Amino acid sequence: MAKLIKKRSKKAGLPPGTLVHIGEKLTEKTRVGVVEYDGQGFQEKELETFDSCYLFPTGPAVTWINVVGIQQVEVLEKLGNCFGVHPLALEDILNTEQRPKVEDYGEDLFLVVKLLSYHEKKDEVEAEQISLILRPNALLTFQEKEGDDFANVKERLRAGKGRLRKMGADYLAYTLLDIVVDQYFGVLERLGERIEVLEGKLLADPGTATLQKIQNLKKEMLLLRKWIWPLREVISSLERGEFPGIQESTRIYLRDVYDHAIQVMDTIEIYRDMLSGMLDIYLSSLNNRMNAVMKVLTIIATIFMPLTFLAGVYGMNFKHMPELDWPWGYPLILAVMGFVAILMLTLFRRKKWL
Amino acid sequence: MAKLIKKRSKKAGLPPGTLVHIGEKLTEKTRVGVVEYDGQGFQEKELETFDSCYLFPTGPAVTWINVVGIQQVEVLEKLGNCFGVHPLALEDILNTEQRPKVEDYGEDLFLVVKLLSYHEKKDEVEAEQISLILRPNALLTFQEKEGDDFANVKERLRAGKGRLRKMGADYLAYTLLDIVVDQYFGVLERLGERIEVLEGKLLADPGTATLQKIQNLKKEMLLLRKWIWPLREVISSLERGEFPGIQESTRIYLRDVYDHAIQVMDTIEIYRDMLSGMLDIYLSSLNNRMNAVMKVLTIIATIFMPLTFLAGVYGMNFKHMPELDWPWGYPLILAVMGFVAILMLTLFRRKKWL
Amino acid sequence: MAKLIKKRSKKAGLPPGTLVHIGEKLTEKTRVGVVEYDGQGFQEKELETFDSCYLFPTGPAVTWINVVGIQQVEVLEKLGNCFGVHPLALEDILNTEQRPKVEDYGEDLFLVVKLLSYHEKKDEVEAEQISLILRPNALLTFQEKEGDDFANVKERLRAGKGRLRKMGADYLAYTLLDIVVDQYFGVLERLGERIEVLEGKLLADPGTATLQKIQNLKKEMLLLRKWIWPLREVISSLERGEFPGIQESTRIYLRDVYDHAIQVMDTIEIYRDMLSGMLDIYLSSLNNRMNAVMKVLTIIATIFMPLTFLAGVYGMNFKHMPELDWPWGYPLILAVMGFVAILMLTLFRRKKWL
Amino acid sequence: MAKLIKKRSKKAGLPPGTLVHIGEKLTEKTRVGVVEYDGQGFQEKELETFDSCYLFPTGPAVTWINVVGIQQVEVLEKLGNCFGVHPLALEDILNTEQRPKVEDYGEDLFLVVKLLSYHEKKDEVEAEQISLILRPNALLTFQEKEGDDFANVKERLRAGKGRLRKMGADYLAYTLLDIVVDQYFGVLERLGERIEVLEGKLLADPGTATLQKIQNLKKEMLLLRKWIWPLREVISSLERGEFPGIQESTRIYLRDVYDHAIQVMDTIEIYRDMLSGMLDIYLSSLNNRMNAVMKVLTIIATIFMPLTFLAGVYGMNFKHMPELDWPWGYPLILAVMGFVAILMLTLFRRKKWL
Amino acid sequence: MAKLIKKRSKKAGLPPGTLVHIGEKLTEKTRVGVVEYDGQGFQEKELETFDSCYLFPTGPAVTWINVVGIQQVEVLEKLGNCFGVHPLALEDILNTEQRPKVEDYGEDLFLVVKLLSYHEKKDEVEAEQISLILRPNALLTFQEKEGDDFANVKERLRAGKGRLRKMGADYLAYTLLDIVVDQYFGVLERLGERIEVLEGKLLADPGTATLQKIQNLKKEMLLLRKWIWPLREVISSLERGEFPGIQESTRIYLRDVYDHAIQVMDTIEIYRDMLSGMLDIYLSSLNNRMNAVMKVLTIIATIFMPLTFLAGVYGMNFKHMPELDWPWGYPLILAVMGFVAILMLTLFRRKKWL
Repeated sequence: MAKLIKKRSKKAGLPPGTLVHIGEKLTEKTRVGVVEYDGQGFQEKELETFDSCYLFPTGPAVTWINVVGIQQVEVLEKLGNCFGVHPLALEDILNTEQRPKVEDYGEDLFLVVKLLSYHEKKDEVEAEQISLILRPNALLTFQEKEGDDFANVKERLRAGKGRLRKMGADYLAYTLLDIVVDQYFGVLERLGERIEVLEGKLLADPGTATLQKIQNLKKEMLLLRKWIWPLREVISSLERGEFPGIQESTRIYLRDVYDHAIQVMDTIEIYRDMLSGMLDIYLSSLNNRMNAVMKVLTIIATIFMPLTFLAGVYGMNFKHMPELDWPWGYPLILAVMGFVAILMLTLFRRKKWL
Repeated sequence: MAKLIKKRSKKAGLPPGTLVHIGEKLTEKTRVGVVEYDGQGFQEKELETFDSCYLFPTGPAVTWINVVGIQQVEVLEKLGNCFGVHPLALEDILNTEQRPKVEDYGEDLFLVVKLLSYHEKKDEVEAEQISLILRPNALLTFQEKEGDDFANVKERLRAGKGRLRKMGADYLAYTLLDIVVDQYFGVLERLGERIEVLEGKLLADPGTATLQKIQNLKKEMLLLRKWIWPLREVISSLERGEFPGIQESTRIYLRDVYDHAIQVMDTIEIYRDMLSGMLDIYLSSLNNRMNAVMKVLTIIATIFMPLTFLAGVYGMNFKHMPELDWPWGYPLILAVMGFVAILMLTLFRRKKWL
Repeated sequence: MAKLIKKRSKKAGLPPGTLVHIGEKLTEKTRVGVVEYDGQGFQEKELETFDSCYLFPTGPAVTWINVVGIQQVEVLEKLGNCFGVHPLALEDILNTEQRPKVEDYGEDLFLVVKLLSYHEKKDEVEAEQISLILRPNALLTFQEKEGDDFANVKERLRAGKGRLRKMGADYLAYTLLDIVVDQYFGVLERLGERIEVLEGKLLADPGTATLQKIQNLKKEMLLLRKWIWPLREVISSLERGEFPGIQESTRIYLRDVYDHAIQVMDTIEIYRDMLSGMLDIYLSSLNNRMNAVMKVLTIIATIFMPLTFLAGVYGMNFKHMPELDWPWGYPLILAVMGFVAILMLTLFRRKKWL
Repeated sequence: MAKLIKKRSKKAGLPPGTLVHIGEKLTEKTRVGVVEYDGQGFQEKELETFDSCYLFPTGPAVTWINVVGIQQVEVLEKLGNCFGVHPLALEDILNTEQRPKVEDYGEDLFLVVKLLSYHEKKDEVEAEQISLILRPNALLTFQEKEGDDFANVKERLRAGKGRLRKMGADYLAYTLLDIVVDQYFGVLERLGERIEVLEGKLLADPGTATLQKIQNLKKEMLLLRKWIWPLREVISSLERGEFPGIQESTRIYLRDVYDHAIQVMDTIEIYRDMLSGMLDIYLSSLNNRMNAVMKVLTIIATIFMPLTFLAGVYGMNFKHMPELDWPWGYPLILAVMGFVAILMLTLFRRKKWL
Repeated sequence: MAKLIKKRSKKAGLPPGTLVHIGEKLTEKTRVGVVEYDGQGFQEKELETFDSCYLFPTGPAVTWINVVGIQQVEVLEKLGNCFGVHPLALEDILNTEQRPKVEDYGEDLFLVVKLLSYHEKKDEVEAEQISLILRPNALLTFQEKEGDDFANVKERLRAGKGRLRKMGADYLAYTLLDIVVDQYFGVLERLGERIEVLEGKLLADPGTATLQKIQNLKKEMLLLRKWIWPLREVISSLERGEFPGIQESTRIYLRDVYDHAIQVMDTIEIYRDMLSGMLDIYLSSLNNRMNAVMKVLTIIATIFMPLTFLAGVYGMNFKHMPELDWPWGYPLILAVMGFVAILMLTLFRRKKWL
C-alpha cells in the first residue's frame, strides 16, 4: 500500500515552491557529473563543491549534467539556482511521487519519467524517478540513485562512435528515454515469467496464497499502467513536435520510442486479461475440489447407509424373525450386502463419479 | 444514503434565484473577515454589522473577503447585494450540493470546490463546500465552517514572506485551490490505511461485516470521484487560460495543482481496483471455508460409517454366526476396525485433506 | 417490459408525417389554454372550439399556448395547421416514445423532454412526454395530462413578481425545463429511499424477492438514464447558444439547469454502482447461509457418528466381550461418550463454528 | 455460429472486383422491376431480357430500378455494366456479409443496409442485405428476396398521394431507409416478448436450457448491435449533409430516421443489461436450490442422528443397565425420543428453515 | 507466454539503429526476387549475389523486390544500404515483434503488417511479419518465410490480366494488404469452428480441460485484436489520403480493405463475448453437477436414516417391549419401513428431484 501513496501529506499547507524531499533515501550524498562533448571532443568531470556555480561552456558543445541523489535539499536548491531551474520544476524533481509528464518552461523543457527495474529479492517492481531538463545546448538529468544504464550512455559518448556524439542535446535526451522504455520490456518479461509459474501452480494447488499472488500481480500491473500511460502521452507530444527544443531529425527516433511504449501498454493489457482469466480458473478449480469432496461423501454414504440399515434390521429383537433361524441366513445376508455394495459402485462408475 | 442526495427537492417549483440554504447547519452565525494587502502593507478586520456595505479600497491592493457560515440566508442576501454577486451565483453558494464548477459572470469568475477531511470518529470522509468569486483586485470566499487551512494562508499573508504578498488575487485563489487539492492526499492516505487494515482482516475473518466495509469504502470512492472528476476539469480550464482573470504567471502554478488532481484520480482508480480484488478474495475465502467444513464432514463420515456398519453386522441376531463364538472374535473385529480407520486416515493424508 | 418498448410497430410502413397517437390515453379531451403577458399585463383564456384558428396578438407580448391531452389526433392536426407546426414535429408530439431531443425548424425550436414522477401506489417511475415549440414571441407546450407544475408557473405569471413577466418566451421555456429537471431530484430521492430499505432487508432476509427488487431498481435506473442522458445534451446545446431563439440573458440560467442535469446523471451512476454492490452482498450472504447450514450438519454428524459407533460396538453379540460383564461398564461407556461429545464441542468452539 | 461468419474465405486470393456471390440462395431467378414517376405520371414495367441495356428516360422524372435476387452472378454483371455501377460496389452487392455502410462513388451514392425480420418458426432474427445506389434522378435497389415492404412503397407511388411522388430520388431512398429502421422495432418487440417469457421461466424452472436461451438471446443482441451501430453512422452522415446527392428538404426527414436508430440502439443496450441481470438471477436461484437441498439433508440428519444414537445406547448388551429392567423404560425412551425430535423441529422453525 | 513477449530485452542498452534479428529463424537463407512490369512487359529474376547493388530501371515500369528470410543480419544490412532504406526502418524489419504501423520516411512509405495463418497441428494461430516499403515506382517487401500468397500475386502479374499490371506500385501494395486481411477471415473461420466444438463439449463434459481451452481461445482473441486493431488504423490513414504515395484511384480500393478489417474486428469482439458467455455456462454447469451430487446424498440419507432409526428402536434390549412379542411384529415393522420409504420417494418425486 505504502507504494501506492507515500506520505505526501507532509507537504500540505506549505507555500508552493517549498522544497521538500518526498521518497526513500537511496544514496548518501548528491553527486554531480558533467560531460561536455561535440563531434570532435569529449570531456568528463565531477563537481566537488557546490559553493560556486559551474559555468556552461560557450559554443556549440553539448553539456550533460547528471545529478545522482536528490535527498539533500539544500544542495539541490543551490544547484537549481546555479542552473536556473524554475522553482516548481525543482519542487517536482524532489518529489518522487510525480506522474510522468512534460512541461514547457520557456527555454527549458522539463520531463519526468520512471525508470523501472525488477527487484529479484523482493520479487517486485521498483521505480526510480528520472527528471530531465532539456535546453538548446545542455541536458540536466536527476536520478535517485547511481545506475548502469546512464553509465553505458556515457561510455558510448566517450567511444564517440555512432550518431550520438554528432547530434544535439535533444538526441541525448531521446537516447535516455529509449533506455527507460527498453527497461520496461525487461520488467514485463520477468512479470510474464511469474505469471507463467503461477499458471502452472493454479491447477496443481489452488490455495489462497495463489489467489493472493494473482492479486499482487494485478496490483503491479495497475502501477505499471499508472506510469506507462502518461509516459506514452509525454513521448507522443514530443514526437508530434509540440516543443521547439526537439529537432525534426530527432523526432523520427522518438516515433520509435513511442511505438515501444504502445507495445508495453498492449502487453500490460494482455497480462491483465490473463490474470483475470486465471482468477476464473482459480474459482472454478475451488468449485471442482468441493465437488470432489462431496462425491467422496456421497459415495461412502450411499454404500454404507443401506448396508447399515440391513444390519440394523437383523439386529432387531423380534421373537418371530424366521430368517434368523435359517442355517444360511448369515452368509445370505452377507451376500446380499456385497451385492448392494457392488450395485452401488457400478452405478457410480456409470455416472463417471469413480 | 442521505450523503448521496440531500433534500434538494424542497427547492422544486421555486423560481430561479430564490435563496434557500441546502445542507447541514455547521456554524451558528455568519462571520465576515476582510484582509487587504499589497507588496507593502497588510490589514485585517472583521465586519461587525451587515447593514451598511463594505467599501472596497481603490488602488492596486488585493482584498480578500472570507465569509464563514452560509445558513443565514438574509445575511448572505445582503452581502451578495453589497458585493454585487450574481443572484444565480449566490443561489449556488447557498446550495451545498453543487458539483465543483467554474462559471464566468463577466468580471467575476465563480468557482465551487469541495474541501475534504477525514472525520476520525465517524470513520468517513466529510465534504465542505468552498465557493470563490475572483475579481481583478479581490477574492470573495464562502466557507461552511471555520477551518485551520485558510487561517494558515492569512498567517502567510501577514508574515509577508514568499511570493504570495507580491502577486494578485488570482494567485491567492490558486493558493486556496492548492490547499484544497493537498487535503485530498491526506484523505486518501487515511482511506489507504483503512484498505490495508481491511486486507489483513479479509483472510483472518471474512464475515459479512468485512464485506459491508469493503462496500462502504467503494461508496466513499464513488463520492470522492464525483467531487474530484469535475474539479480536475475546473482546474484544467483555468490552466488553459480560458478565463482572462487568471494571469499567465499564475497559470504555470495551476498546472501543478492540475497534476496533483490527476494523481488523486489515479489513486482513486487504483483503490477501486484493489477493492474489487478484495471482493474476489472475500468470495474465494468464503468458498474455501465451505470446503474446509465439507472436508471435516466427509472425513468423519468416511471413517465412522464403515465402522458402524461392521459393528452393526456383529450386532445381528442370526443363530449361526460362527465369528461370534470365536474366543478372539471381539479383539479381532476391534483390530479390523482400527485398521479400517488408519487406512482411511492415510488415504485422506495422501489427498492432502489433513 | 411493455414500458421499454411500446407497440410502436403499428406505425411501420406508413408514410412519414402520418399522425398516429402512440402511448396511453391519459385524459379524455384535448384542452388548450392560452396565456398572454408582458411587463404590464396578463390575460388568460381557454379555447372552446378548434374550428377557427386562434390569432396571435401583434406586438411584443409573449403568448403561451398550453395543450393538454394529445390522443385526439384530428384535433391536434387542426391545431398544428393553425399554429403552423411542421408535420414531422407534430408526428413526434403524438408519439410519446420519443427520446428527449431538440430540433431546429427554422423559426421554430422544437424540444421534447420527459417529466418524471414517482407513482407511490405502483411503486415505479412514470414518465410523461412534454413537447415545446419555442418562437420569438410565443411558446407552445403539449402535455399528456394536466399537472400542478405548469399551473404553478401560470400562477407566478399572474402574480407578476420576479423576472418571469419581464422576460421573453425563451425564459418561460427555461422555467419549464427547470421544473422538469427539478422533478428528477424528487424521483431520485424516492428511489434512494427504496434502495436504503432494500439494503436493510438484504442482510436480514436475502430471498429471491429481494434479488428481484434489486433487478427492478436497476431497470428503473436504465430507464432514467435513457431519458436523462439525451436531455443533458439537449440543454447543453441550448446553453452553448447553437440556436438563435435563446437569448444570451437566458443562457446563463440554462447553465444552471445543465448543472442539475449532470448532478442527476452522477447520482444515477452512483445508484447503479450501489445496486451492483448490493448484488455482491446478496450472493455472498446466500453463500454464508449455505455455510451456516453445512456447519450445523457437520457438527451434528461429527458428534453423533462416533457416539453411535461406540453404542454399536457394545451392541455386538460376541460371546467374549469382557467389558459387558464389568459392573461399571455401562456408566463408564456413558462417561466416555460424554467425554467424546465435549471434546468435539470444544474443538468446534476453537474453530469458531459455534 | 455459421450466422456469425460465413464461408467468406472462398474469396481469399482472388483479385479485387472479382464477382462472387456470398450468402444463401434465397430466390431462383433475378428479376428487375422498373418504376418511373414524377408529379404527373407513374409507369411500371419489368425487364424481361438482360441482353440489351435499359435506357434511362431523359427529363426530371425519377426512375427506380429494383433488382430482386442476386445470386445469378453473370446477370448482375450485365446489369452492373448497363447501369454503370462501379465494380467494387457490385462486388459488395453480391457479398451479403457487408456491414451497413455508405460510400461515395462520384455521382453515385452507394448504401448497404440490413433488413431484419423475425423468423417465427426458427425463433431467430433473419437479416436480408439491401443495397441502394442513389443518383440525381434514379435509385437502384438490390434485394436478396421479394418482400412486402418495398411493394407497399410502389403502391404508395402508384396511388400518388402524399409527398412521395412530388419529391426526388433521395426522398424515395429515405422512404426505404425509414421502412428498414421501422422493421427493427418489430423485431425488438418480438425479442422483448421472448425475454419476458424467459424471465417468468427463470424462477419457475432454472435449468441449463434456460441458461442456453439467455445466452442465445445475448448472441442475437450482439448481432443486432453489429448491424445497427454502423447503420446509425450511415444515417448520421447522410443527415449531416456530407453527400451532395441528399437535398436539404430530405435531410430533415433523415433526422427522424436517425432518432429511431438511436432509440433502437438504446433498447438493445437495455435488453443486454436485462439479460445480464437474468444471468445473475439464474445463478442465484441455482444457489438457492442447493441451499434448499442442503437444508433437507441437515434437517433429516439432525433429527435422526440423535434418535438413532439413543436407540443404539439401549441396544448395548451390558449386563448392568438398570433402565432396561424398568417397566416404563421403553415408553420413557420413546417419549424422550419424541421430545428430542420436537425440540429439533422447533429449533429449525426458529431459524426459518421450515 | 513466450508468444506474448519475446526476448526483446537483448536489445536494451544498444544504440538505436543497431541491427539485431528478433524472432524465430524460419528460413535458412535470405532470397531476393525481383519483378519488373508495366502495362506491356513483365520480367522476373532472382538476385544471386548481394555484393553489388541491384540497379533500379529508369522509366515508368514498376519494380517489386521481394525479400524472403530476414535473419541474416549482414545480408539485410547490405540490401538496406543498396536500396537506401532508413536505418530505423531496417531495424523494425528485423524485429518481428513490431505492431502493425505505417511510417512516412519522406519518399518511402514504410508499412508493417502481420500475416496470420492457422497452424492445424499446433492448433494455434501463427503470425508472420510482413514489411513493405512503397516508393513512387517500386515496392520492397520483406517476409519471414516463403508463402503461397505472394506467389499467386506474381502469377497474376505474369498472366497480365486485370487491373494489376496497368496500375502503379501503390496498387500492388494494396493487393498484398488485401491478401493479408483476407487471411484473417480464414483464421477466424477456424477459430469459430473450435468455439463451436467447445460449445458442444461444454454441456457434455465440463472439466477443467474445457475451461483451459476457453481461456486459451480468449488469449488467441487478445493476440488477434492486438494485431488487427492497429492494422485498422494503418489502412484508415492510407485510405484517408494522408500519404502522397497512395493515388486517388487506389484509395477507393483501400476503403474496401478497411471495411474488411472492421468486419474482422467485429467478429473478434463477438467471439470474445461468446467465450465469456461460455465461461458462465461452464460455471453454472459445475454448480448444477454439485447440485446433482447433493441430491443423491440427500435422497439416500432421507430414506435410510429413518429406516435405520426404526430398526435401532427394535434392536433395543428393554425387557418390556410388547411389540417384540407380537407374532406379526416383524412383518408389520417391515411394512412400516416400506411405507416410509415409498412416502419419501413420492415426496422427492413431487419436488422433482427424481
